[in-house]
Amino acid sequence: MSDRAGADVRALTEALIARPSVTPDDRGCQALIAERLRAAGFRIESLRHGEVDNLWATHGEDGPVFAFLGHTDVVPSGPVERWASDPFVPTLREGQLYGRGAADMKGSVAAFVVALESLVRADPGHPGTLALLLTSDEEGDAIDGVRRVAETFRARGERLDACLVGEPSSASRLGDVVRIGRRGSLTATIRVHGVQGHVAYPDKADNPIHRALPAFLELSARQWDANPYPDFPPTSFQIANFNAGTGASNVIPGEAVVQCNFRYSPCWTSDALIAETERVLAEHGVSSTIHWHRSGEPFYTPDGALRRAVRETLAAELRVTPDENTGGGTSDGRFIAPLGVEVVELGPINASIHKIDEHIAVADLERLPALYAGIARRYLGMR
Amino acid sequence: MSDRAGADVRALTEALIARPSVTPDDRGCQALIAERLRAAGFRIESLRHGEVDNLWATHGEDGPVFAFLGHTDVVPSGPVERWASDPFVPTLREGQLYGRGAADMKGSVAAFVVALESLVRADPGHPGTLALLLTSDEEGDAIDGVRRVAETFRARGERLDACLVGEPSSASRLGDVVRIGRRGSLTATIRVHGVQGHVAYPDKADNPIHRALPAFLELSARQWDANPYPDFPPTSFQIANFNAGTGASNVIPGEAVVQCNFRYSPCWTSDALIAETERVLAEHGVSSTIHWHRSGEPFYTPDGALRRAVRETLAAELRVTPDENTGGGTSDGRFIAPLGVEVVELGPINASIHKIDEHIAVADLERLPALYAGIARRYLGMR
Repeated sequence: MSDRAGADVRALTEALIARPSVTPDDRGCQALIAERLRAAGFRIESLRHGEVDNLWATHGEDGPVFAFLGHTDVVPSGPVERWASDPFVPTLREGQLYGRGAADMKGSVAAFVVALESLVRADPGHPGTLALLLTSDEEGDAIDGVRRVAETFRARGERLDACLVGEPSSASRLGDVVRIGRRGSLTATIRVHGVQGHVAYPDKADNPIHRALPAFLELSARQWDANPYPDFPPTSFQIANFNAGTGASNVIPGEAVVQCNFRYSPCWTSDALIAETERVLAEHGVSSTIHWHRSGEPFYTPDGALRRAVRETLAAELRVTPDENTGGGTSDGRFIAPLGVEVVELGPINASIHKIDEHIAVADLERLPALYAGIARRYLGMR
Repeated sequence: MSDRAGADVRALTEALIARPSVTPDDRGCQALIAERLRAAGFRIESLRHGEVDNLWATHGEDGPVFAFLGHTDVVPSGPVERWASDPFVPTLREGQLYGRGAADMKGSVAAFVVALESLVRADPGHPGTLALLLTSDEEGDAIDGVRRVAETFRARGERLDACLVGEPSSASRLGDVVRIGRRGSLTATIRVHGVQGHVAYPDKADNPIHRALPAFLELSARQWDANPYPDFPPTSFQIANFNAGTGASNVIPGEAVVQCNFRYSPCWTSDALIAETERVLAEHGVSSTIHWHRSGEPFYTPDGALRRAVRETLAAELRVTPDENTGGGTSDGRFIAPLGVEVVELGPINASIHKIDEHIAVADLERLPALYAGIARRYLGMR
């Protein structure tokens, strides 16, 4: 990439940071991007759901379809007075660009745009299709964002083959970590029913804490994956909240509320975990009411064309061999992968995301367009 | 007993109810009683500790020493507007005397006084010693009351042989239940230490809830008494409060706070239960900080002179065969029994105690002086 591309991605990142697009308010970020890509020859489709803006831009007629995936929304700044500079005024200090969204992920989004412009400029009649999908609801409920768009794609048979998510995956050096999947997340809020009474008369009460103990011990002590799933940490069950009691030391409470969370490998589906949990509770005679919240099934991209393109580009551009893993939380990739799409996540260093004084190294930001362009070019076999 | 005794016990009970002696404020109840007993020939000793009044009255020079034990303090009335009549204005309605303390236990205290007066009147040179011990701190912290008096007795070698506590022991008919002991009560507040973290990275955290489960399962499932102790319900361990969690479903908390209570038979002492609990926690590798609160060791009065005197009197006066058990909470008997004293509790029906519209049946109240006098007379072999 040229120096011009470096200046370009910095300017666009700054323009996006200056728009305080706290979830789900896009604040014109997508309009700015749509305008540029339309000028570059992309077809632009706006898929607004409720308060959420989603943008779908494509260039090309055939398969395979290679898409970049990102979000224009950011988490709130937190206390502004604790920032060294205004979180929504992009500020350069000692080689770092500061501002909310600099690393998560307005820098990546700007780099997508600059990369796509350079790709179609260099190869206007390129094979396959280049695409960009953006949402303004990744940091929030994630209901009207990519989840909803994926439903639309499924309904109309929209083709996607590969998806590069620009989430900040890097740990200490740009490109050192690439996500090739994510665990699923499933949360249960379990109200264990008992009968309240006085501790002096335990026979007249039914202690829900005592009732709960053997079942939750079994659930927490269990090794959930019979065999480790390749590239995945083992499925994990954690009790996050356990609350029971009236506060008095002489009263057996009538109810215990236990909230627990599964992070699970593709060995499991949420349906199977729900059935298994309910079986264990029933087997121990626990009377309960359960509310389940499914945050997303796990996904996994086996080694193939996309992961190869990513590795080759990282080697060529940055001389980096990435750690390809499935760590961390969830991302919008969970909604795209089930469409049968190869999904890989690669983006800047994530040390400052969601924090005071979020920033991205200008040198890393200026390397992103060439990195993203190189992956798309290799995947589609472009000039 | 004569009609005069009936009128007398009612008048004294009313005089005591009219004094709003909410713990620890005696409000002159003991002075009123001391004056009457001094006139009857009793030696009077006032043992005031802090805000608490204690009265020790004796008549006689030799052993054995038979003492009545009671308290002049009452629990607060609760919302006065919910009472049918002012809780501190004794009120007769349909054969019941209403007022705070009517059943717990100003009726019993008045009956003690009337009984003692009649006993020394009938047998001025009686064998043994008749005594009355009153405190104004039974319903409260119970620190400066009988607990402190018992220390004084122990220090000066004061002799006591039998103690009749006037707590309202009866269930549905006067005299149907007699307490021949009480379980001990011991409370632990256990802070289980862990390491806070994100549920996605369980290896970097140490979940204190998971840590706690096996130890508390062992404690709660255990049969604590190897063999049932005669006349005692089995020792019971109950978790009353279990609180852990930040409220967020994706955070492993750093600490769990578990409050549990033992009600225990004479198979155990508080020291032994503390040692055993701490052993179980240590054995399961639970790192914790424990605050112990000892409410009172168990006590038990085997069948003997006092229980026989109680049974014979109940048969003679009321034609009742009592259920002699150790149920219910704690009483000041726990402080007297360890001095090597036979302790039995017998008093009016307890259905309304600590409640709105507390009351005692006038017929029961008028029977109490003869009942208490009969027990003392039989125990000491008086005329």
